Amino acid sequence: MDGLQAVRYTRGRLLVLDQLRLPHEYEYDEVQTSEEAFDAIRSMRVRGAPAIAIVATLALAVELVNQDFSSATVVSQQDYINQKLDYLKGSRPTAVDLTNAISLLKQVIAHAGQSSNEAATVREAYIKAAEKILQDDLTTNLAIGRYGAEYLRRQQSPFDIVDEVGCFTTSSSGEQIALEKDDRKMSVLTHCNTGALATSGHGTALGIIRTLHNMDYLEHAFCTETRPYNQGSRLTAFELVYENIPATLITDSMAGALFAQRKEEKNISAVIVGADRVARNGDTANKIGTYGLAVLANYHGIKFIVAAPTTSIDLETASGKDIQIEFRARHELTQISGAVVEVDGMVNTSKKARVAIAEQKIDVWNPAFDVTPYRLIDAIITEKGEVVRSKTGTFDFQAIMPERWTAQVEKEAHERI
Amino acid sequence: MDGLQAVRYTRGRLLVLDQLRLPHEYEYDEVQTSEEAFDAIRSMRVRGAPAIAIVATLALAVELVNQDFSSATVVSQQDYINQKLDYLKGSRPTAVDLTNAISLLKQVIAHAGQSSNEAATVREAYIKAAEKILQDDLTTNLAIGRYGAEYLRRQQSPFDIVDEVGCFTTSSSGEQIALEKDDRKMSVLTHCNTGALATSGHGTALGIIRTLHNMDYLEHAFCTETRPYNQGSRLTAFELVYENIPATLITDSMAGALFAQRKEEKNISAVIVGADRVARNGDTANKIGTYGLAVLANYHGIKFIVAAPTTSIDLETASGKDIQIEFRARHELTQISGAVVEVDGMVNTSKKARVAIAEQKIDVWNPAFDVTPYRLIDAIITEKGEVVRSKTGTFDFQAIMPERWTAQVEKEAHERI
Repeated sequence: MDGLQAVRYTRGRLLVLDQLRLPHEYEYDEVQTSEEAFDAIRSMRVRGAPAIAIVATLALAVELVNQDFSSATVVSQQDYINQKLDYLKGSRPTAVDLTNAISLLKQVIAHAGQSSNEAATVREAYIKAAEKILQDDLTTNLAIGRYGAEYLRRQQSPFDIVDEVGCFTTSSSGEQIALEKDDRKMSVLTHCNTGALATSGHGTALGIIRTLHNMDYLEHAFCTETRPYNQGSRLTAFELVYENIPATLITDSMAGALFAQRKEEKNISAVIVGADRVARNGDTANKIGTYGLAVLANYHGIKFIVAAPTTSIDLETASGKDIQIEFRARHELTQISGAVVEVDGMVNTSKKARVAIAEQKIDVWNPAFDVTPYRLIDAIITEKGEVVRSKTGTFDFQAIMPERWTAQVEKEAHERI
Repeated sequence: MDGLQAVRYTRGRLLVLDQLRLPHEYEYDEVQTSEEAFDAIRSMRVRGAPAIAIVATLALAVELVNQDFSSATVVSQQDYINQKLDYLKGSRPTAVDLTNAISLLKQVIAHAGQSSNEAATVREAYIKAAEKILQDDLTTNLAIGRYGAEYLRRQQSPFDIVDEVGCFTTSSSGEQIALEKDDRKMSVLTHCNTGALATSGHGTALGIIRTLHNMDYLEHAFCTETRPYNQGSRLTAFELVYENIPATLITDSMAGALFAQRKEEKNISAVIVGADRVARNGDTANKIGTYGLAVLANYHGIKFIVAAPTTSIDLETASGKDIQIEFRARHELTQISGAVVEVDGMVNTSKKARVAIAEQKIDVWNPAFDVTPYRLIDAIITEKGEVVRSKTGTFDFQAIMPERWTAQVEKEAHERI
């Protein structure tokens, strides 16, 4: 895996990029213990639900490799791991990826203990499973990137081959229809940060942009500032500059003017965003501002694409109406922090300041997310392939996740009895 | 005139609110000379095209009242005034209001000199004309406020009385149809700052909100941050808090979610914006972000209203395609200044800092304005009445400005020969 990584791991060694120092400094900290991982997560040095799960679980793997457990029994080793996992869960209790990872790992070591009398077997089972979480996340992101890029490339075709492919594809990467033609490259807009910094690497929405760039399909990437927390201007812009992807930053308010003035010039073909949660009907909760971009994309005939692993698709939630929106503090709009710009114009990365950027007494409305209705979404790209809004205007996730679909339908049938 | 004023004037005394210290400090500086006015404009202590023209021309009036011109002749007095006006023009050469005011005042003193041998007559003519510019701007804003408020109130009626009124009204304020019914109050959203701070008082788009509030038609005002220069969160929010108008700040990216989630709850009925220039077909150039709000308002069935004095309607410009858009510096997006927030959370108004809020190496696209096509505008409110988009979808300014319309048509006919 080349390129930017929030986490660098080899067995026994875990390095974590300090995202609090981004974009002005680029430094990795070594994480040797569960306690150090807890602290890195709690202090926001690492963020993004997949990245948090990876750092927490791999830090414990590093401990198991490097510390002396020669006197451990199977039971004492299991107890040690379970206690550490419970402790790590408290670093970000709401992060669903971390919770899922911990459940999985507990099952793995319970199972390993049943088939062996060696504590080393338990340790080895844990380490391999934790490493697989890292690898699976990366595999997922690379698949999303590939499916997304190929889907978008096909949209450039003058022929309506989407119909032939159906409302989704599950062919392996590289086996999809590769257009042999001289279509011009496309430009895209993304919102918030869904890149390598939030995941094991590559990213979801930004992963599609990376793949478009790698496949030489990308003309230009535009990223929004993403007020009020500026994940776009701080993190996505950093990733795009770091990887030399041709890119331009705009304020959130400039998206409309960008589409109106530059759609033809730059062949702006898609808005690509991530998802905090996708409901069963396709309604998607994502960073505030996503919905407005969907309306603008729709108005300008630009595709609106959601990139999400199947783990973000929540079949239990029927529609966006059932998704709870978090409201955040007023000072996120009225104040902002950053590295001090000295009078000579140089950014002093060792000196931080917080400044007031608004009337301090004004009331503030600060929802962290909004919900984009499925009608405004053209396709949801998962690691199993893309799910395209059908001719009847709906999304059908049954084909890409048949087992979960069946289980959910059975559960609901049972509840109705 | 009660309420917030950028300028406080009585004959011989001019006080100018220092807008650089807003919203954290509220202080007036006395301006006694043309040189002090030049400095206040150049340093951005006063901003907004109407306010700039008023400060520049009234500063010279103050000079003429307070300084000793007892030995002046008509010609030397005219020369003195003309030289000072030429000098003042350089304080903000692109401000059309200032240029127009200077042209008018030069004509006034030329005319006064023809009918008198007294230098005092020239001075008196200048002072009265400068005072009339202040008074006329205020009258214009109050009329826009009244026409706008009454137009919006009529839209709340279940009956389509707009048709009876025609595509515009020129009845005096207060003589328009006052609905005698128990319609609920309305909420509105505004963008940028078009208030008392940018004008002689009251404001244009924000003037309509002030009038709605004074007439007890307003439930709630929402204002956007207005990135990248934050005129909304710094200035509009300050004005709304100052006048106790119920108001809430949102980021530009939250407008879509606001309409989707709270239109019914708050009876959000209109987006009201100002205009930098209105073309003959109604296309309107205004602060970046205006166009996106117009698309969102349209999508949500919310009226989109432009408030502009007839001086902002440019009959020589056929459509928005002919309006030149200014691009501004990249650091407006990547850095921001403000009063320092100390570790105890208090804002230290005596300590300013500039901080980096983005990857500093990212390319930036920073247009200062965008153009909203007339199709997305429901009405343009002027001091002569509202011009409503007609049933055929066009704007007709002939009725509210017949002389300028005729002159322009004749000019174009002449050019075609």
